[in-house]
Amino acid sequence: MTQRLDAQQLADRFYHSPFIRWLNLSVKEVNYHAQTLTVTVPMRPEFERKADSGQWHGGPLASIIDTVGDFALGMLLGQGLPTINFRVDYLRPAIHTDLTVVATVRRLGRTVGVADIDVLNDHQQVVAIGRASYATTLSTPEDKK
Amino acid sequence: MTQRLDAQQLADRFYHSPFIRWLNLSVKEVNYHAQTLTVTVPMRPEFERKADSGQWHGGPLASIIDTVGDFALGMLLGQGLPTINFRVDYLRPAIHTDLTVVATVRRLGRTVGVADIDVLNDHQQVVAIGRASYATTLSTPEDKK
Amino acid sequence: MTQRLDAQQLADRFYHSPFIRWLNLSVKEVNYHAQTLTVTVPMRPEFERKADSGQWHGGPLASIIDTVGDFALGMLLGQGLPTINFRVDYLRPAIHTDLTVVATVRRLGRTVGVADIDVLNDHQQVVAIGRASYATTLSTPEDKK
Amino acid sequence: MTQRLDAQQLADRFYHSPFIRWLNLSVKEVNYHAQTLTVTVPMRPEFERKADSGQWHGGPLASIIDTVGDFALGMLLGQGLPTINFRVDYLRPAIHTDLTVVATVRRLGRTVGVADIDVLNDHQQVVAIGRASYATTLSTPEDKK
Repeated sequence: MTQRLDAQQLADRFYHSPFIRWLNLSVKEVNYHAQTLTVTVPMRPEFERKADSGQWHGGPLASIIDTVGDFALGMLLGQGLPTINFRVDYLRPAIHTDLTVVATVRRLGRTVGVADIDVLNDHQQVVAIGRASYATTLSTPEDKK
Repeated sequence: MTQRLDAQQLADRFYHSPFIRWLNLSVKEVNYHAQTLTVTVPMRPEFERKADSGQWHGGPLASIIDTVGDFALGMLLGQGLPTINFRVDYLRPAIHTDLTVVATVRRLGRTVGVADIDVLNDHQQVVAIGRASYATTLSTPEDKK
Repeated sequence: MTQRLDAQQLADRFYHSPFIRWLNLSVKEVNYHAQTLTVTVPMRPEFERKADSGQWHGGPLASIIDTVGDFALGMLLGQGLPTINFRVDYLRPAIHTDLTVVATVRRLGRTVGVADIDVLNDHQQVVAIGRASYATTLSTPEDKK
Repeated sequence: MTQRLDAQQLADRFYHSPFIRWLNLSVKEVNYHAQTLTVTVPMRPEFERKADSGQWHGGPLASIIDTVGDFALGMLLGQGLPTINFRVDYLRPAIHTDLTVVATVRRLGRTVGVADIDVLNDHQQVVAIGRASYATTLSTPEDKK
């Protein structure tokens, strides 16, 4: 029996993954009806593409996209999911800005789930978009993400 | 006039990007003839998916794929390039292992370049594969990556 | 100076490409403000995955996605564009149905444009989704698509 | 118990799918050891991007990529597989040429398989490349592809 994750449980999952903790994601909104998860992420110096540029490197953006898409499905299924694959398109540079990330479930199948992830800057411009597929076959408790 | 980057110049570029420095990539082989770039990356605790699991989170893998593919083209063109988009497929978990990353140029066009990136564990098994396209229109010196 | 294409001009372009004519796309709506292009496509026997199954093969779906995304940008720029790359995710089988395809421009840059494409069945269910990037550097008249 | 498909059985599968028959694929080589499938495809007028241009439209290329990648895995598993998603990168125009398509299995997992597909022109130049994932959970006989 699967059980949804609420905002606090998502935050706990994020905290207990060393890499996600390093990304420092904050859960902003969990919407089970729309099947969306919204997260905010402040800039940190280690994310910079060039020193003192204030520009996000694409790597953290991709990592955030993968993770937030994962838990948009995961919040419905009660656990994080293995990523099958994902695509990232960079639309414009993200400079001197925090990020808001909105992941929307496009398909929740028995074996595969698909999510779209938009990444916005402080001016509500889309800086990057992701599309990801995850394995939704639920794992046993001992190998949960 | 473009000028190739050698191993030391690539290492310098990696060092001067805060995020790439954090990834801690070591240039292992630059092959201009085969148009391949090989990099090694040791595990570090912040890369872990779960604490003490020894398993790489997918985020660092994706970030490494993007970066090494970028500089496989970039070493031929003399500078890092803006990523247009990329895809990552995770083939098997990477656990208790360092990584060897081999990026191969598939196409070097005037406006778009394409690279394939394979990520191997210590047993030479492929753990993840990437395919990425980059903008090859050369930028002026002041906005170099 | 670029000039937009209207519905009739799009239909002409579709007609003069042998492959697009074979796909048999009908322009349903051109919306410059929302930057969306909506097209309908009836089933035809050659599209079937298995004889008499009524199920669309994925190939025509992918071809339609590529084409409609292309002209969502192309209608703004006055000509079809070379596809750089695209991704298709199949969400559910398309069986005994015509298709409605909605392409939305996500980014119209000087060298690269990005479109999202949703494919719907007669019950307004999404059967497949595409994401595609195109080269927006305008070609000279003689090598127009 | 799965049973491999040989070249004749693949040809039969191709023939019995209306869409694949229309693509007119010829099996050239089945290599179980290397896990590769090689197929040739002659140009036909309906594939043209523009009338009398001799240039392949990207749609047939994408369709061929999806199909050959599918049966590179399918020949090992005894049946065609549902495509989860795929990516196509167009590297150069394919003009006045037949095509040779080589699909290589990158991963054959219990639930997901991944294939790389290269498309070559008559001069052995790569014109397009694909990467695709398929659902490898075997279906029961009555819903085989």
